[in-house]
Amino acid sequence: MVNYPHKKKPTLKSTSEKTISFGKRGMSFEDDLTKSNEHYLAANKAVIHKKPTPVQIVKVHYPKRAAAVITEAYFRTPSTTDFNGVFKGKYIDFEAKETLNATLFPLQNLHEHQVNHMMAVNKNGGITFLLVKFAKFNEIYLLPCENLATFWQEYKLGSRRSISRKEFAQYGTMIPEGAFPRIDYLKVVEELFL
Amino acid sequence: MVNYPHKKKPTLKSTSEKTISFGKRGMSFEDDLTKSNEHYLAANKAVIHKKPTPVQIVKVHYPKRAAAVITEAYFRTPSTTDFNGVFKGKYIDFEAKETLNATLFPLQNLHEHQVNHMMAVNKNGGITFLLVKFAKFNEIYLLPCENLATFWQEYKLGSRRSISRKEFAQYGTMIPEGAFPRIDYLKVVEELFL
Repeated sequence: MVNYPHKKKPTLKSTSEKTISFGKRGMSFEDDLTKSNEHYLAANKAVIHKKPTPVQIVKVHYPKRAAAVITEAYFRTPSTTDFNGVFKGKYIDFEAKETLNATLFPLQNLHEHQVNHMMAVNKNGGITFLLVKFAKFNEIYLLPCENLATFWQEYKLGSRRSISRKEFAQYGTMIPEGAFPRIDYLKVVEELFL
Repeated sequence: MVNYPHKKKPTLKSTSEKTISFGKRGMSFEDDLTKSNEHYLAANKAVIHKKPTPVQIVKVHYPKRAAAVITEAYFRTPSTTDFNGVFKGKYIDFEAKETLNATLFPLQNLHEHQVNHMMAVNKNGGITFLLVKFAKFNEIYLLPCENLATFWQEYKLGSRRSISRKEFAQYGTMIPEGAFPRIDYLKVVEELFL
């Protein structure tokens, strides 16, 4: 299935088409997580990486004496989560999302495939969770898969559209801010799951 | 770092540039592994996926009323392995390569980053290995990270350029052929590591 990645969808001008340079989007939460993962790797504490953006490659141009150029490709809906890896032998798998909304996290920010993937990981003994950053408060919460599953079920039944910040505080765990690493989510993982 | 992915590098005509359609390459080993992983997932035995090809996206075109098109992107050197996931709570991570060579597997088919990644995974308690298929004999071997590390050290010192099929038979384990799944590598993983 080919579609727009919702995070990258720009406001479209109605009268013209647009070509936009990639890589200027705000990715501070993702950057902080990547830096934290680099810290864990250097400290030999865990090996956790962000997966590449899934892309359907259609045409590749091979110029003489230069690198191959992909000239036609499409974004694909991710079938798994963004981050996975190993911590103390255990499989770690999570999705990370940032919201500018002050009071709630809209569940439409997650794909059905991603939630199903998390449930399958959970059944197979992996440690899996959602990390949500409320940017206005600089608060990051870890919500375990089991809690997300309950909320997701209500979402699929139509009785829920979002998870409130209050619910994250109640059912999740706040990740304390630090310096090295900036987001020490494995500390919370260790307390909750190991 | 941007470069040619060696598997996909075509024979270049010296007088002209070429644009080649992607997706027609022989990928039977990878396809068989993907089907085996789908079998494991459906049987709720493991959750293992191939990571997307790492691509550096430079330009995206957003046409009106149609899916976003990536119009300029480059292949990146993979910093990790192709496959990872969870089996009985344990982290599984491996690279899969096919060779048409009858007697040996050239070590230049692996990236330094990938081998370093496998060693880091190993140190952190993950299960990691190399799968190599000798296509002429339809033989698939699993070589544990520790053995690969020894061969790789000799390769870096210049005293070795490849791993022979005999060495795979001696230090690795052959994956028996099957029907469902076609490549039951987790059976060997269970015998060797769990």
